[in-house]
Amino acid sequence: VRNTDRLGAELQATWHAEIPLAAAMAIEVARYDDGELLVRAPLAPNRNVQGTAFAGSLFSVCVLTGWGKVWLALRERGTSGSIVVADSRIVYRKVVSGEILCRCRADAAVETAALDELEDSGRATLPLTCTIDGAGAPAVRFEGKYVVKRER
Amino acid sequence: VRNTDRLGAELQATWHAEIPLAAAMAIEVARYDDGELLVRAPLAPNRNVQGTAFAGSLFSVCVLTGWGKVWLALRERGTSGSIVVADSRIVYRKVVSGEILCRCRADAAVETAALDELEDSGRATLPLTCTIDGAGAPAVRFEGKYVVKRER
Repeated sequence: VRNTDRLGAELQATWHAEIPLAAAMAIEVARYDDGELLVRAPLAPNRNVQGTAFAGSLFSVCVLTGWGKVWLALRERGTSGSIVVADSRIVYRKVVSGEILCRCRADAAVETAALDELEDSGRATLPLTCTIDGAGAPAVRFEGKYVVKRER
Repeated sequence: VRNTDRLGAELQATWHAEIPLAAAMAIEVARYDDGELLVRAPLAPNRNVQGTAFAGSLFSVCVLTGWGKVWLALRERGTSGSIVVADSRIVYRKVVSGEILCRCRADAAVETAALDELEDSGRATLPLTCTIDGAGAPAVRFEGKYVVKRER
C-alpha cells in the first residue's frame, strides 16, 4: 500500500468518524496522487428537489476536498494544525446529474510557502480551488481560503 | 393556523421529503413572519472535527433558507417555478458552537420586481442575503443569486 493511499484512507475515515454530514453524503476519497486529491459522492443521498445534485452537497464536497488537501499537506510535512475555511465562493455553471467527482490541486509553490509560514509563525492561509465536472464539462467552481493554526 | 405558518410547514415538509441532506441536517422552519424566514438546525448532526458547526452545514442551511424565501414568495404570489442558486459567497467570521439559526429577508421592492419579471419573461434573478449569528454576534454571511424559471 502506497503512503498516499494510506493517507487518503485515513482522511476518509476521519471525515466519516467526525463529521456526520460527510457520512450522510457517503463521501469517499477516490484518489490521492501526485498532489491531486479526487473525492467522490454518489448522487442518491445528495439529490435536490429536481433530482440533480443539491447545491449544499456540491459545496460540502468542495469544502471538504479543500480541507482534505490541506490536511494531507500537513501530514506529508509531518506536522498538524487546526484547519478552518474563512470564506469561499462557489459558482454553479451546470447541473450535476450523476456521481459528484471533485478535484483539488494546490499550486506547489504556494502550498510550500504556506507550510513554511505555518512553521515560522504558527499560522498560515492557503487559497484553494476545487472543481466538479458534469457531463464532461466544468459544472462547479469553488474557491476557498483555508486558515491553518498550529495546535497547542 | 395562519397562512404563513401553513406555508412554513409545507416548505419544511418539502425539504425533508425531497432533499436527503436536509433531513440529515434536521433542518426546521422556525418562523416565517412579516417577510422574514427563520430556519434552524441542531448542532449534533451538523458538527465538524472541532465539535462546532461544519462549514458545509452552515452553507447548506443558508442556501436552503434563501431557496425557501424564494419558494414562499412564489407561493404567496400564487405562482410556481424552478428555483436554482447560480452562485454564492459565504464568509465565516466566527465559529458557531450551538444551534444554527439562519435568517433571510428580501428587500420587498427587489422581490416584487423579480416576481414581475418572472411573470413577464418567464425568468428572473433574485439576490438574497442570509445570516447566522453565533454567541449573539454575526458569525456567517451568505450572499446567493437565485434564478427562477417558470415551470412548463
